[in-house]
Amino acid sequence: MAGRQFIGKPARRVDAADKVTGRTRYVADYQLPGMLYARCLRSEWPHAVMTHLDVSPALNVPGVAAVITSADFVDDGRFGFPVRDQYILAHERVRHVGEAIAAVAAETPEAAAAGLHAIRCELEPLPAVFESAQALAPDAPQIGPDRSDGRHPNFLHSEIVRLGDPDRALPQCPVVLDAAYSVAQQEHAYLETEGALAIPTPEGGVVVYASNQSPFINREILASVLGLPADRVRVIQAPVGGSFGGKDDLNYQASAQCAALALKSGRPVRMTFPREESMIASYKRDAMHMRVRLGALPNGDLQVCKFTGRLDSGAYASQSVFTSWRAAVHAMGAYRYEHCHVDIDCVYTNNGYAGAFRGFGNTEVCFAIEQAIDEMADALGQDPLAFRLRNCLRLGDETAFGQRLEESVGLAECLEAVRKASGWDEKRAAYARQPAGPIRRGLGVAAVFHGTSLGAEGADYAASTISVAEDYSIALTSGLTDYGTGAATVFTLIAAEELGTRPERIRLLRPDTNTSLESGPTVASRSTMLGGNAARLAAQNLRQMLDFAAASLLNCPQNRLLRVGEAYIGPSEEPATWERIVDHARSLGLILSAHGRWSAPHIHWDSQAGRGSAYIAYHFGAHVAEVTVDMRTGKTDVTGFWAAHDVGATIFPQGAMGQVYGGVAQGLGYALMEEARYEAGYLQATNFDTYLIPTAKDVPDITCILLEKPYSQGPFGAKNVAEPAMVPAAPAICNAIAHATGRRVRDLPANLERVLLGHALSHSDGGLACKIGLARPR
Amino acid sequence: MAGRQFIGKPARRVDAADKVTGRTRYVADYQLPGMLYARCLRSEWPHAVMTHLDVSPALNVPGVAAVITSADFVDDGRFGFPVRDQYILAHERVRHVGEAIAAVAAETPEAAAAGLHAIRCELEPLPAVFESAQALAPDAPQIGPDRSDGRHPNFLHSEIVRLGDPDRALPQCPVVLDAAYSVAQQEHAYLETEGALAIPTPEGGVVVYASNQSPFINREILASVLGLPADRVRVIQAPVGGSFGGKDDLNYQASAQCAALALKSGRPVRMTFPREESMIASYKRDAMHMRVRLGALPNGDLQVCKFTGRLDSGAYASQSVFTSWRAAVHAMGAYRYEHCHVDIDCVYTNNGYAGAFRGFGNTEVCFAIEQAIDEMADALGQDPLAFRLRNCLRLGDETAFGQRLEESVGLAECLEAVRKASGWDEKRAAYARQPAGPIRRGLGVAAVFHGTSLGAEGADYAASTISVAEDYSIALTSGLTDYGTGAATVFTLIAAEELGTRPERIRLLRPDTNTSLESGPTVASRSTMLGGNAARLAAQNLRQMLDFAAASLLNCPQNRLLRVGEAYIGPSEEPATWERIVDHARSLGLILSAHGRWSAPHIHWDSQAGRGSAYIAYHFGAHVAEVTVDMRTGKTDVTGFWAAHDVGATIFPQGAMGQVYGGVAQGLGYALMEEARYEAGYLQATNFDTYLIPTAKDVPDITCILLEKPYSQGPFGAKNVAEPAMVPAAPAICNAIAHATGRRVRDLPANLERVLLGHALSHSDGGLACKIGLARPR
Repeated sequence: MAGRQFIGKPARRVDAADKVTGRTRYVADYQLPGMLYARCLRSEWPHAVMTHLDVSPALNVPGVAAVITSADFVDDGRFGFPVRDQYILAHERVRHVGEAIAAVAAETPEAAAAGLHAIRCELEPLPAVFESAQALAPDAPQIGPDRSDGRHPNFLHSEIVRLGDPDRALPQCPVVLDAAYSVAQQEHAYLETEGALAIPTPEGGVVVYASNQSPFINREILASVLGLPADRVRVIQAPVGGSFGGKDDLNYQASAQCAALALKSGRPVRMTFPREESMIASYKRDAMHMRVRLGALPNGDLQVCKFTGRLDSGAYASQSVFTSWRAAVHAMGAYRYEHCHVDIDCVYTNNGYAGAFRGFGNTEVCFAIEQAIDEMADALGQDPLAFRLRNCLRLGDETAFGQRLEESVGLAECLEAVRKASGWDEKRAAYARQPAGPIRRGLGVAAVFHGTSLGAEGADYAASTISVAEDYSIALTSGLTDYGTGAATVFTLIAAEELGTRPERIRLLRPDTNTSLESGPTVASRSTMLGGNAARLAAQNLRQMLDFAAASLLNCPQNRLLRVGEAYIGPSEEPATWERIVDHARSLGLILSAHGRWSAPHIHWDSQAGRGSAYIAYHFGAHVAEVTVDMRTGKTDVTGFWAAHDVGATIFPQGAMGQVYGGVAQGLGYALMEEARYEAGYLQATNFDTYLIPTAKDVPDITCILLEKPYSQGPFGAKNVAEPAMVPAAPAICNAIAHATGRRVRDLPANLERVLLGHALSHSDGGLACKIGLARPR
Repeated sequence: MAGRQFIGKPARRVDAADKVTGRTRYVADYQLPGMLYARCLRSEWPHAVMTHLDVSPALNVPGVAAVITSADFVDDGRFGFPVRDQYILAHERVRHVGEAIAAVAAETPEAAAAGLHAIRCELEPLPAVFESAQALAPDAPQIGPDRSDGRHPNFLHSEIVRLGDPDRALPQCPVVLDAAYSVAQQEHAYLETEGALAIPTPEGGVVVYASNQSPFINREILASVLGLPADRVRVIQAPVGGSFGGKDDLNYQASAQCAALALKSGRPVRMTFPREESMIASYKRDAMHMRVRLGALPNGDLQVCKFTGRLDSGAYASQSVFTSWRAAVHAMGAYRYEHCHVDIDCVYTNNGYAGAFRGFGNTEVCFAIEQAIDEMADALGQDPLAFRLRNCLRLGDETAFGQRLEESVGLAECLEAVRKASGWDEKRAAYARQPAGPIRRGLGVAAVFHGTSLGAEGADYAASTISVAEDYSIALTSGLTDYGTGAATVFTLIAAEELGTRPERIRLLRPDTNTSLESGPTVASRSTMLGGNAARLAAQNLRQMLDFAAASLLNCPQNRLLRVGEAYIGPSEEPATWERIVDHARSLGLILSAHGRWSAPHIHWDSQAGRGSAYIAYHFGAHVAEVTVDMRTGKTDVTGFWAAHDVGATIFPQGAMGQVYGGVAQGLGYALMEEARYEAGYLQATNFDTYLIPTAKDVPDITCILLEKPYSQGPFGAKNVAEPAMVPAAPAICNAIAHATGRRVRDLPANLERVLLGHALSHSDGGLACKIGLARPR
């Protein structure tokens, strides 16, 4: 850290002042002269065929300016990657409640609503599937697209990991565990709902302001469905009021709907979402049913893991193909095994649909594996934290999928850190001795590893631009975006550190497909490493020019230059201000701008073999939760929380800690209260009066420990923090509940009923809850 | 023009003040701390094989930091489009005198020279070819690369135009002309010689400042020969001190040499060229031998044209493939024919090499066809201007290659304009009656048509970016560059007109592969139409956002807004300043930047058939030259000049007129004095003491008439002016010489000897000078 001015030091979040003073303008704040308001007609059936759709009556409604259907888009508006199964507006069929069918733009929101009312749409309900277990039944109604490989059309995807032969090895293990777990759909619950504003341009193109995570993907979809060349479509990311992975598909649809309406009407068109519409129409974290079989030696050495999962992707594929892969890679947890098989299958149902959500598969599987590990420790009579330390991945180990971990492996240190900080040993002993009574306390632990960035999933690069403006300020762009993660501050601090300028001098421009450089999607815990490295390289390139200018002005070699604040000092010891250096560089003819582009080292995953190098680096972490359970009501209070994370290096401490606090809070909600439950395809809670998320009163003081095992390729050694900060929170809490109550909750959320009754209420597969003992050969 | 503020109005050239005050910094002015000076070892033989090359002794010379050869580049540094036959540094063979063999970078220019001296290079001379007529002889030594089609390796390319059957029709014409013409190589004679500065970047890339025309092509070549990804190579166009097509290949080589030396030494490396080195090493306008056969009816109706040309490309292909095509398309002149065949063949010799030069093939063929037209008029006993008016292309006509001219055809008007302005009819009559004596006067005319932009030669598009800066100024970029053409002012005026802002508010940023958008090469009279349209679209897109802001601020629909200067006025009639509108736009959340991209309408040329649509539009023009010839010495003075050009529309009047003045001056030099003569492969004049170019005293007052036949796709109707302003000057002057002297000079330059003796001194093919009469069937 020696000599660093800004990296890892207290800093002000760059977007904080605008946000707290209300200057930040979200899409819903955009108001242009002549602007129209758009709304969508949405399906009230979970599965239906459109027998009649006539939008023309809407055009007779006063104030209605334009109406669109799937016929207004190229190829009916089909989009989606990697599976192209979605539509901007439903085409021929609807597959979930809330799916958009037609869109109206009108002078007022009221006229738009009246226009929707006038549309004649007849839907004939089709048989539907709501249980993922039934999706692949031979007689299940078809939801997914036709397949050419003879598989059931409701089968979407599968991913595997393969090491050794668990089926042979498991029966030979002296101690085995066989348990089923499930997680429910979860709503992202961002403060700001979705929204888009489209402006038709004079040459027949469109500018779209939208609050989605990845403007370049939005542009690609827009160009494709509108039939425009990419250079006629510009996407600017409006400030995003929270996303957590959730601002993509529905915003792509809203963007394209607004764009088509704008091109049709020749006027700006804005669409924003009431909370209920957002919750019904948007995608969720997938629900997953999992079965974990573990085998261990009596001494506590883990031997075998066999993990199967069935992911409910709902009506569309969205990101489930990628979610499945991340789930498969992380399903066995950060432990050493001799044998490990993971099988994640992914199916279509008519329950809304599932897409990206913080943790992206790992949050789901971590809930299962980290409880199973605890249950195995119980079966062995070992302390669960010590059991984890005994088996966890360490430097030089190979993962179950065959990747040697050669640097930056801080899991054992994280476990030790929370052990110490939480007073683990003392409290576990004390709570084991607590007297019987209605109020019981418990302490639980869970560990996490989480691959940084896209890994072998995709081409992994990011780019940044930087330039000195006329007023001596510095304009920075990144192809990766900040939707609340703090990435903007991370990029700013990195650039400031490299340039030796105050962070206040740097302005991060809005993400914009016209001015930022394409950098892939902003997902998958990749902003700090990818975007940070790009910003760092850009700043280094710019710094070089300023050093030339300083050496020229101060008449010395570059290596004789010193910095005092922003000023340069040469042999004469008289400081030359930033402004003077900039002026001199310009007088030398130097252009004071630069690009930086960083590509991650190439790695390979063999999806057929279920082996390979999945990610360039891994985040490691451990959570300890302390709970108090009222045994009469099942009410659980989380009374203490200790989170240790190996982030590689900390760039923006408050930001990293904020991610941990937020991640723990979101994990607490996932653990205890959040459930986006569908009944017969209908979401049961469509606003925050019934869909409960943690409030400040639900969240305890959180002790955040940032451990630093620098990763050589990360900017200043940094890896990632935002996603994995959430991942182990729920299993840590459920392990604490089990410790407090002796009852194991294997299905999320751990609500009053489940805590009160334990696994008896489980809706897991086949009645299996948990079996422990000596397994028999089949 | 109604309501236009800036287009077509007097304006200040945007780069004038910096240039006249010396603030402009050319490559030779760049001086960075630690910078090395580079120089090249060059061949003293026109054709030789390298038997030994050892650069290591150079490294022992004090001050030498790095030495490179072809081995330092990927694929030996081969480059070139469309024919990849050139090398950054000669590989195995040298093919012309002055070809670079090795390059040295050293602390001082003197050390670099000493380093060159130390290199051990042995060249074994090979037989060479210097006459294009001998290039394809069966025993001619091979210069060009191996061919797979069985043709002679010294054959480079051919292009044709085909209409009817001249071979059948010509013998049937009552009046035929059969004459041979030739043009010599011409030196571009830019004020600034070539140069490049390369700076190695911290991540292993390179930033190159070079004065070449097309930075994106330079980047492509650099990335290829250096083996770097494109994003590690940045090319910034340094201010260009003249180019005329001439700043490309040698600058590409210098850029790559500097870049390789910079990467090797880790230090900035600059290379600049003394005049002699520039003239020896750089490419020239091609020499061409041409034969023109024309057939006409006695009434003066042109019937047949058969045009053959042999273009000497010299040692390398460079742009000759494209030059041949433009030559073929324009060879018959802007006239109607019943039958027309054009055949342009292109061969390799060991005479330096030929590349792009203003007019690009048309300058060469126009010299031949416009004298042939005059000779035919003479044979018919008709006034040459009236003869042209009788036969010239008019609106609705079809060109010889089959393209219907549907708009913007102003040739007849140009001819009429110069007829009137020059007092043609009176003077021609008077000079015909002038008494015999040593001083004779003559008046000559020539016409031109010249295709705008790349035409069917390539994908034709350009892009521009525009943004409002923090200080309310406007930053504009173009993918096309200004190397003295005035394009920067044209783009600025167009953007100012569209935005309604003062041109002074607009700053055109330096062309830069990092910040400008790729727009193809800056060649071929395409800047105004392509770059102008792109700037216009960009400004329109930005203007839309400002109009939104103004309507919002002034509380009225956009169509109620008025402008007074930069201010907006709404119904309240209180002006809102530019700054206030910009501030309001930002407060609305609007991003004040935009792109514009314009693609030319698609056209098709069938090169097998020699027919098609060659260019989207054509410039038309006519020159009248008045000369005084001293019959005792052959000395020719051009005493008057009238130039009329149909530019579509004038954007920047002084700029357009400047192009005409400069074009006429350059054409005057081509006509009377300039000749880059090679003797046995050695350029005979290597500086301006012997290579004579016109001085102010040689150039008469020029009357410039800008005619406007707007082209619907051009920005404000504009086409082009820079290239064609030169094209007809030389034949007009030679026609005037013929008028004055009765002697026809069919070979350029029309120096003292040729004017004194006429065609007797001709070095044209086969002794043919000119035959007129009734042709016999063969």
